[in-house]
Amino acid sequence: MAVPVWSVDPRTGKQRAEAGPAAGPVATEATADQVDAAVRAAAAALPALADRPARAALLRGAAGLLEESAEEIIATADAETALGVPRLTGELARTAFQLRTFADVVDEGAFLDVIIDHPDPDAKPIPRPDLRRYKIPLGVVAVYAASNFPLAFSVPGGDTASALAAGCPVVVKAHPDHPATSELCARALRRAAVAAGLPEDTVVLLHGFQAGVDLVRHPLVSAAGFTGSIPGGRALFDAAAARPRPIPFHGELGSLNPVVVTEAAAAERAEQIGTGLAGSFTLGNGQFCTKPGLVLAPSGEDGDRLVRALTGAAEQAAAGVLLDSRMRDNFVKGAAARVALPGVTTPVAPGAADDLSEQRVRAGYVVVDAADLSEQGAYDLLLEECFGPLTVIVRYADAAALGAVLDRLPGNLTATAHLGAAEAGEEGGPAADLLRRLTALAGRVLVNGWPTGVAVTGAQHHGGPYPATTSTSTSVGATAIERWLRPVAYQDTPPALLPPELRDGNPLGLPRRVDGVQQL
Amino acid sequence: MAVPVWSVDPRTGKQRAEAGPAAGPVATEATADQVDAAVRAAAAALPALADRPARAALLRGAAGLLEESAEEIIATADAETALGVPRLTGELARTAFQLRTFADVVDEGAFLDVIIDHPDPDAKPIPRPDLRRYKIPLGVVAVYAASNFPLAFSVPGGDTASALAAGCPVVVKAHPDHPATSELCARALRRAAVAAGLPEDTVVLLHGFQAGVDLVRHPLVSAAGFTGSIPGGRALFDAAAARPRPIPFHGELGSLNPVVVTEAAAAERAEQIGTGLAGSFTLGNGQFCTKPGLVLAPSGEDGDRLVRALTGAAEQAAAGVLLDSRMRDNFVKGAAARVALPGVTTPVAPGAADDLSEQRVRAGYVVVDAADLSEQGAYDLLLEECFGPLTVIVRYADAAALGAVLDRLPGNLTATAHLGAAEAGEEGGPAADLLRRLTALAGRVLVNGWPTGVAVTGAQHHGGPYPATTSTSTSVGATAIERWLRPVAYQDTPPALLPPELRDGNPLGLPRRVDGVQQL
Repeated sequence: MAVPVWSVDPRTGKQRAEAGPAAGPVATEATADQVDAAVRAAAAALPALADRPARAALLRGAAGLLEESAEEIIATADAETALGVPRLTGELARTAFQLRTFADVVDEGAFLDVIIDHPDPDAKPIPRPDLRRYKIPLGVVAVYAASNFPLAFSVPGGDTASALAAGCPVVVKAHPDHPATSELCARALRRAAVAAGLPEDTVVLLHGFQAGVDLVRHPLVSAAGFTGSIPGGRALFDAAAARPRPIPFHGELGSLNPVVVTEAAAAERAEQIGTGLAGSFTLGNGQFCTKPGLVLAPSGEDGDRLVRALTGAAEQAAAGVLLDSRMRDNFVKGAAARVALPGVTTPVAPGAADDLSEQRVRAGYVVVDAADLSEQGAYDLLLEECFGPLTVIVRYADAAALGAVLDRLPGNLTATAHLGAAEAGEEGGPAADLLRRLTALAGRVLVNGWPTGVAVTGAQHHGGPYPATTSTSTSVGATAIERWLRPVAYQDTPPALLPPELRDGNPLGLPRRVDGVQQL
Repeated sequence: MAVPVWSVDPRTGKQRAEAGPAAGPVATEATADQVDAAVRAAAAALPALADRPARAALLRGAAGLLEESAEEIIATADAETALGVPRLTGELARTAFQLRTFADVVDEGAFLDVIIDHPDPDAKPIPRPDLRRYKIPLGVVAVYAASNFPLAFSVPGGDTASALAAGCPVVVKAHPDHPATSELCARALRRAAVAAGLPEDTVVLLHGFQAGVDLVRHPLVSAAGFTGSIPGGRALFDAAAARPRPIPFHGELGSLNPVVVTEAAAAERAEQIGTGLAGSFTLGNGQFCTKPGLVLAPSGEDGDRLVRALTGAAEQAAAGVLLDSRMRDNFVKGAAARVALPGVTTPVAPGAADDLSEQRVRAGYVVVDAADLSEQGAYDLLLEECFGPLTVIVRYADAAALGAVLDRLPGNLTATAHLGAAEAGEEGGPAADLLRRLTALAGRVLVNGWPTGVAVTGAQHHGGPYPATTSTSTSVGATAIERWLRPVAYQDTPPALLPPELRDGNPLGLPRRVDGVQQL
């Protein structure tokens, strides 16, 4: 029996009957047979995707089609996520930019990592054969869409774009928070595939929790990308590892994104940092994976000024609607549990915004002393991510107290230092030490900025030690393509049988490393 | 109570009392506390290893010390493995070359993968911050030594060399087949570390099965490299994935290394292929991970000629001693089970060489019809690796029969095609199709050669789809270093606090990608 998938308006908690094609559900949950058929259909598209120009055309075409349908997509996404039209307009632009960026990556071809070593009969200690290596697509990629970015980390998002760029067909498991948006985006991607001369099933969309589990276990799925919670991501990671043939599982699970404000920074810019922090932790109602969730601020008057500025700004933050009622309930419960910890103070109380509407939540923050966090115990709750507009200020008395907390932190997507002007200019001093410590904790280290906002560029790294990610990879930026490739080497293979990428004379004009020398 | 570790002579099956420092055991198995102490000692070496010139000096120094002690190391390794002085002399040269190759990799610095994107306030869709990314070492690496290469894939082998090159301290779990050799090599590596100004515990050696299990579970171990059997490797892979913080596990587990001989190749070179195959599958007594273990040869007279040549050459192969008595027993049992399959013929019987000595085994091979392998059943045993001097010839009648067997093969380190002269020169023909199919099956594809012999070079890829490896990585060649690194990006970080690798002006003279352009 088909299980219907409804689009739900988080502002009301009600099913959006009008969202479906027949004033009903948007879709149905995929059965095991449907998952199997979807994966087989996607797998059949693999050979066609070997055509790199077609891949680039697909990515650019998809960007164009998303832009053409922007109004409908944004309205639908707003109705399903309550993220607001301005934010979703920006997210669609970012998503289109990301697709075009990966088209450029495909065109350039550096991701193929071509290495050619000609034979050397005189090589020591033994003669060397002709060896030529490049990277090929892994096969069908399963993408698990995120709740909080219905476009940029969902159906047409970075995982899909980078997998298609690599030459991998994609089966996306839609997030239940935005099934109608997912359908619209999948339609655009499939149309773009056909327009580029590729099979429609280059991208296939599935709905349903069990479909997601079946997907990661399917023998023809060769890798997976995930953005979501620690429990959900870990369960899928475990399933990927337990397969008869284990597959790479690139999951972005959770991150506290610690921020350290030094004494000097607080002395110089307490108010600016306090208001900046309020803007960052409440952005998108605190539903960013890079939300600064733990801020180490100094004890003393300068730290007090920072807290006062934070209070002033956080009190101004508008109450907002979270992505769904489960997240809202978890946020309200999580906020209450943090507030209830003995000794924790709550200058601005986070939680349900009863005065406005049952669906809204208020941003807030709690303050704890670093000493409470220096040993395992009840306060460890404050070292867990709380999804939503809440952050934790940890007041530290000295470098030792700061270090004791840093020692206890899990892996993170980002870690940020706010430094004084003199510190920022000093080589080999305490600030350099601090950055070294933060580097051990995260995949991206920022100075005097805020971690929300993840630029799509070559040098980006959006990933970090577990639980930030389950691998050493990035899900944003040009190198995200590396997740979906594996190297293969050809030994003593006649020119006529070599892929053109590996032939002498470089017929495709690729950047290659030949006999130990990089060629552009 | 300390469990003694003995050195055993596989030629006699007896403990080598003289191998120990006090005419006794070589070492003792590490207790849980000793594993913990070893990992902590290695972890303490991590900061010192940030010095890249020191790492290069360590690698070159280790190569020199191995060569200085070559006589003792080779004699010890021969006594423990029966691999013979000529082979071990070559293996030591290869090991020293590999260490020096990784020193060159460290010096060049391309492995740091530096990408710098300067800020762009006018970037679309949003302004871009300053982002600079490179790769840093993961932390302590656990290396599980192989049985069959006591040097090149053991204590001073490719996993250790590439991990040290990456800046990771190494804890090696010795293989029980060569503990005394392992001790000698660890001593050389530790001396080289000290000579390079690095902590002695940059490399630590452990013995014992349980120590290996404890090692992969240790919280301070950040990655593992393994070369060995499918059951052993999978158990450690599972343990690595099941940790609270999962770690990358780069295991090389098993490989059939299929070879396809086309009709034309057999017609042109049946005898040459038959004798070449005999040389390859009996090399090192068939104890190569790249041994051709499944050879698809055409039915008909040309294929018959190949088989006759193989028989003649295989009958000449000297009986040999396997690495230990367990492997010998497994080989004898495995050979008998294959020979006993109905319809399988055995032109040269593999198994115990009763006429020579109980410790020796004879090389041999079996022949089966492709039709028997086209469906799941008892013949699947022939699709499993049999460690030792045995190969399986599969006679195929036509392209369909060949394809049906290829469709059933698991992942492999290598796949080889023997082609006729005309086929080798034809673009887009059946040989190109064949290579495409072999590419899907393996990490290295060879034409008209034999897979035994793995060149240490930039373009090498020694890895392949599971169970060949548990990841997409290589354990041989320059890119093996990538296994032990993770990227980190710095955003808007003042020049004084940036690692010198990422500063403007390129003070270290590294190859870098700056604003989208590769610079040499």
